[in-house]
Amino acid sequence: MNFKMNEAIEVLERTPQTLAHLLSGLSDGWLHADEGEGTWTVAEVVDHLIEGERANWIPRLEWLLREGEGRPFPPFDRFAHLEGQTARSIEARLQAFAELRAANLVRLRELVDPAVDLERTGLHPAFGVVKLRELLSTWAVHDMTHISQIVRVMAERYRADVGPWTAYLGILRRK
Amino acid sequence: MNFKMNEAIEVLERTPQTLAHLLSGLSDGWLHADEGEGTWTVAEVVDHLIEGERANWIPRLEWLLREGEGRPFPPFDRFAHLEGQTARSIEARLQAFAELRAANLVRLRELVDPAVDLERTGLHPAFGVVKLRELLSTWAVHDMTHISQIVRVMAERYRADVGPWTAYLGILRRK
Repeated sequence: MNFKMNEAIEVLERTPQTLAHLLSGLSDGWLHADEGEGTWTVAEVVDHLIEGERANWIPRLEWLLREGEGRPFPPFDRFAHLEGQTARSIEARLQAFAELRAANLVRLRELVDPAVDLERTGLHPAFGVVKLRELLSTWAVHDMTHISQIVRVMAERYRADVGPWTAYLGILRRK
Repeated sequence: MNFKMNEAIEVLERTPQTLAHLLSGLSDGWLHADEGEGTWTVAEVVDHLIEGERANWIPRLEWLLREGEGRPFPPFDRFAHLEGQTARSIEARLQAFAELRAANLVRLRELVDPAVDLERTGLHPAFGVVKLRELLSTWAVHDMTHISQIVRVMAERYRADVGPWTAYLGILRRK
């Protein structure tokens, strides 16, 4: 196992700034691109990250600490962010994400003592028993999954434009 | 075709700052992680991006503009950055990348008039005839490939730690 809470926090606290520098001020062509029918735009990925901050990570952590293995987490709707959206700018979305994330990292440090709590367990509705450490590791890797998705969505836009170089560009070989 | 030079520049000018926010100050555990024998660390990916700025993109652009289809580009050694490295900090590497990239974008604007030059052609040693537009599109997608690689390398470190959540984390399913 490689998880250390302070190192996971290093990643979690960097994601909002990383995305702000990647996405702020980009042309609509980049922000409105997707990978085809039923796939997400860059802006929708940021909305999904916001929804996770609001309804997933800290609420589940609190549930695990309160309920243990007694009752499973309420399910998290991974598509909730696609409903009832207001047309916020990408900058407003990134700002909302940054504020929620910062508050959640304060809360994480209040809730968890890594010297004693990492092996505490809860009940996932699909997986069964899960550990607090697994939930926190997943939070960090979830950020990386969606940073990867964002650059993949952007790269897709130039699939035809790169011509024969497709062969050398791994990001265009996987979906 | 989606390529517009000003939009490609938006991406190219954001990558150094994006990586600076993602990587500066990270623990060695993140910076020294790789995906196994023969794979690159995060720091080696940044070295590869530096080598591209130094020896690939602008030199090939200049070659294409000078030689047309007369003589193929000299081959680019995609592993050159693994030789003779000095042990620079990640911050020094990111700074070197940012400086080279900024200078290269100035040079790009001097060399290319997007109203007339995008369909100009050169000769790639493996692919044959390639267009200037394809070279510039590839430069931008190459950035995205390596941002994606960096977060994939980092995510790999927590493969065991996330436990059953592997099933929901796309970044752990592909190599």
